[in-house]
Amino acid sequence: MVQTKNDSLKHKIYTIVFEAETKAGRTFDIILLFLILLSVLIISIETVPEIVLNYRQYFKTIEWVFTFLFTLEYILRIYSSPRPFRYIFSFFGIVDFLAILPTYLSLFLVGSQYLLVIRILRLLRAARIFKLTQFVNEGQVLTRALRASMAKISVFVGVVLMVVVIVGSIMYIVEGVEHGFTSIPKSIYWAIVTLTTVGYGDIAPGTTFGQILASLLMIMGYGIIAVPTGIVSVELANIDKNTFNSRVCPQCHKEGHAREAKYCSNCGNQLTNLT
Amino acid sequence: MVQTKNDSLKHKIYTIVFEAETKAGRTFDIILLFLILLSVLIISIETVPEIVLNYRQYFKTIEWVFTFLFTLEYILRIYSSPRPFRYIFSFFGIVDFLAILPTYLSLFLVGSQYLLVIRILRLLRAARIFKLTQFVNEGQVLTRALRASMAKISVFVGVVLMVVVIVGSIMYIVEGVEHGFTSIPKSIYWAIVTLTTVGYGDIAPGTTFGQILASLLMIMGYGIIAVPTGIVSVELANIDKNTFNSRVCPQCHKEGHAREAKYCSNCGNQLTNLT
Amino acid sequence: MVQTKNDSLKHKIYTIVFEAETKAGRTFDIILLFLILLSVLIISIETVPEIVLNYRQYFKTIEWVFTFLFTLEYILRIYSSPRPFRYIFSFFGIVDFLAILPTYLSLFLVGSQYLLVIRILRLLRAARIFKLTQFVNEGQVLTRALRASMAKISVFVGVVLMVVVIVGSIMYIVEGVEHGFTSIPKSIYWAIVTLTTVGYGDIAPGTTFGQILASLLMIMGYGIIAVPTGIVSVELANIDKNTFNSRVCPQCHKEGHAREAKYCSNCGNQLTNLT
Amino acid sequence: MVQTKNDSLKHKIYTIVFEAETKAGRTFDIILLFLILLSVLIISIETVPEIVLNYRQYFKTIEWVFTFLFTLEYILRIYSSPRPFRYIFSFFGIVDFLAILPTYLSLFLVGSQYLLVIRILRLLRAARIFKLTQFVNEGQVLTRALRASMAKISVFVGVVLMVVVIVGSIMYIVEGVEHGFTSIPKSIYWAIVTLTTVGYGDIAPGTTFGQILASLLMIMGYGIIAVPTGIVSVELANIDKNTFNSRVCPQCHKEGHAREAKYCSNCGNQLTNLT
Repeated sequence: MVQTKNDSLKHKIYTIVFEAETKAGRTFDIILLFLILLSVLIISIETVPEIVLNYRQYFKTIEWVFTFLFTLEYILRIYSSPRPFRYIFSFFGIVDFLAILPTYLSLFLVGSQYLLVIRILRLLRAARIFKLTQFVNEGQVLTRALRASMAKISVFVGVVLMVVVIVGSIMYIVEGVEHGFTSIPKSIYWAIVTLTTVGYGDIAPGTTFGQILASLLMIMGYGIIAVPTGIVSVELANIDKNTFNSRVCPQCHKEGHAREAKYCSNCGNQLTNLT
Repeated sequence: MVQTKNDSLKHKIYTIVFEAETKAGRTFDIILLFLILLSVLIISIETVPEIVLNYRQYFKTIEWVFTFLFTLEYILRIYSSPRPFRYIFSFFGIVDFLAILPTYLSLFLVGSQYLLVIRILRLLRAARIFKLTQFVNEGQVLTRALRASMAKISVFVGVVLMVVVIVGSIMYIVEGVEHGFTSIPKSIYWAIVTLTTVGYGDIAPGTTFGQILASLLMIMGYGIIAVPTGIVSVELANIDKNTFNSRVCPQCHKEGHAREAKYCSNCGNQLTNLT
Repeated sequence: MVQTKNDSLKHKIYTIVFEAETKAGRTFDIILLFLILLSVLIISIETVPEIVLNYRQYFKTIEWVFTFLFTLEYILRIYSSPRPFRYIFSFFGIVDFLAILPTYLSLFLVGSQYLLVIRILRLLRAARIFKLTQFVNEGQVLTRALRASMAKISVFVGVVLMVVVIVGSIMYIVEGVEHGFTSIPKSIYWAIVTLTTVGYGDIAPGTTFGQILASLLMIMGYGIIAVPTGIVSVELANIDKNTFNSRVCPQCHKEGHAREAKYCSNCGNQLTNLT
Repeated sequence: MVQTKNDSLKHKIYTIVFEAETKAGRTFDIILLFLILLSVLIISIETVPEIVLNYRQYFKTIEWVFTFLFTLEYILRIYSSPRPFRYIFSFFGIVDFLAILPTYLSLFLVGSQYLLVIRILRLLRAARIFKLTQFVNEGQVLTRALRASMAKISVFVGVVLMVVVIVGSIMYIVEGVEHGFTSIPKSIYWAIVTLTTVGYGDIAPGTTFGQILASLLMIMGYGIIAVPTGIVSVELANIDKNTFNSRVCPQCHKEGHAREAKYCSNCGNQLTNLT
């Protein structure tokens, strides 16, 4: 395959912009992360009335600098990508686009204050940091543990939701409008606030029976947190065991043999000893 | 055994309505689940004053559609069940009956608003979803873990209740009526709210000694959550181990082979397949 | 040894009152537990102003019945105990005495309302239930796990207390009197309320810096709950392993050999196989 | 090496002041810990307006006694240290200096009330207690478990922060100023208060959509606490296993003998002793 000078440049940009294996690529990622976080910080501060009052012009200027930099990055990504359309319609491609769109739209639309908050989605771009090698494994382990726990956790969440709806409905009848339980959805909201031990106190039971039922719900919420915790612990321990004893069979290349294994459990070939 | 055409129809309905092994049965269950959740949603929304005001007639019509469908289902269940009376007086039979009763009663009884909330028990019917194969195992594992932990958790809950009653009584004396601790039951309610880390703030200690005691109770509540969590984790890990690792090598009798193992990891002998 | 008729009676009472091995002993314990819980319930309800108003005389009568029964029990315990003084000055002996004292004192002292609350200590007598065989093992396992975790948990609590005192002091300077942080002890109380995720909201940070610091404290409190949980889980798992593999060496009687052990790890004697 | 009398004295002071191996050293540490805690307690109480009013002179006297004792200790530490400058600029050296500085400064600076609160940093000096042998191991185990979990926990905290910022921003738009969500930073603060299940209730959602979103955030916060808990549990279990079970039989090379094992549980061969 013959590479033209242009292709070579494209590939170079690609390794910097999309990958994190080279030194330049890692530096690019870290600078980008820093810019994203700074930009998100400024978007947040921009909504504080006391601060923004006297410095509106400064914020606008900074914002255009960020938008310019992110637009440049977006163009580089499209240019260097081997399949530009695939990138544009990928999750990160859309996020990258939404991250710069609102600023340009604000030129045409007046009063697009809420539109500007969409820029906070820039933060999602920081998720790219997880492609750095030291985080890839950890992220995978957590994701695998959560996926393996998913069915058990679904059953758990299903039961919790049933409890919350039924207790909420009972409280609606017991407590009624005068204690803030104005409707069943609001009572369910209260039940979730209570079961998860958040406890705002914006709605609180006033009758004796209501307080007894609330007490039971609290003790239940306090106790059953043990269930998801136990599920995830066990799955993490399982993955951990398989990961750390990562011996490979020299014949059939099966991975993940137990520590004390002497023969491959897949093909029966003898395994080399652990040091 | 000779099956009449009628028996055959009955059996066919039975496999659809009660079981989830056939495709028709699974489809029936999923449509039913959808209808139940929709119905519960509508019952909830019906109690929101702002919404219901202008659409009372629509809600009534929808409710009668649901009641008609669920009544039809109830009749089909009775008809197809080999032992109708056993079904009628089973847990789910009673729930199915209570799910349709209030709408019919509302024809005769005026002002039966609270009666209508009973329909929320329809949600319990959604528990039938757990008979779908992918959830059966998970549900069983959780149930087994909780049952195995029951004795330990009883001791734990017993100790917690003692702490709550005694701390509540002390707070009643220390804080008194002026800070909202108007009686021992109310003080116990406060102690539960505090120990479970819910913390509404509807009652909060005002004296220095009360705040010190409350602090101790909080730290205790924060720390001892570790106990049920540890109990359930250990039981789940035990069940997990027993479930996945109960194969024995016929030659060297080594136990605990992984699910996908084909050869013994200790002596290299071929293992019998798992079903 | 010659037993007089008196001694025999004494021993019989002893087995009923103090022990739970005989059927009579178990029945006695369960009735006693029921009476204790009923008595505690009545003491609690007695403090609710609306209830007690019209029934003060009934409550007084019921209380004297309870006091009479518990006094009888106390006398039987002293009479049947082989070493009466040892019982009287034991923990449960003192609790038994305090459980009946306040009612008698109320005859002489007027306005001894708060004294009567001491009777709630009767609840501690319910702890005797844990001598019933099904709870003894579970209680021991939990106690052993907590004792084994004690040193690690002390280090943890020490660090937590340091964090709470220092963050509390900083908040006292940052937030000051106008946001409710009137003194360092009160600020430490707030820090405990926050770190343990109770969050009453009676005191809440008002300044930006205070809210940032509070956010850090919350995330910390939310995350480090993992530490005691992990400690207790590991200790429970260890005990569990030792308990379930409870094989005993026939030569040196050492307990707790691992599942796959073939020889005693203490004296080298061959072990019998597990079934 | 010839030791002069002076060197010998220096060394003796060093073993008492810096170390905890001798009896005198341990006694010194415990007295010091007691003085530090007492001093911190007094600094805290000094800020309570009702208490300090009439006893200001007593507090001042006590404070000077503490400052004198801690100054003496500081001088002894500098004198006995083999490398005084290294001590002075070490973490504990600076803390020791900051612990006495404010009292002296208060002679020259009037109104240095907030300066005096710096003395609360004396509490950090209590961290020296962890050099006592019974805590060293426990502290190391916890530190190792937390360090091993660090990468996984970073990923977890990263995801949590993203959720909090994005949910906070949405709530700012949905709820707006009228329900207390006056700016994005304040909304993020609310999201942290909610996700960590603290739930002050100083800001609470008022709209239906806001309450639905808040409910999701609560359930999420309630569930994902399982993740750090699982991570730390697994790491603690790993360390525990490695610490207690790293002996190998010299004959059959079986690993993982219990701490107190004298003979190999696999072949019956005698094991070498643990130090």
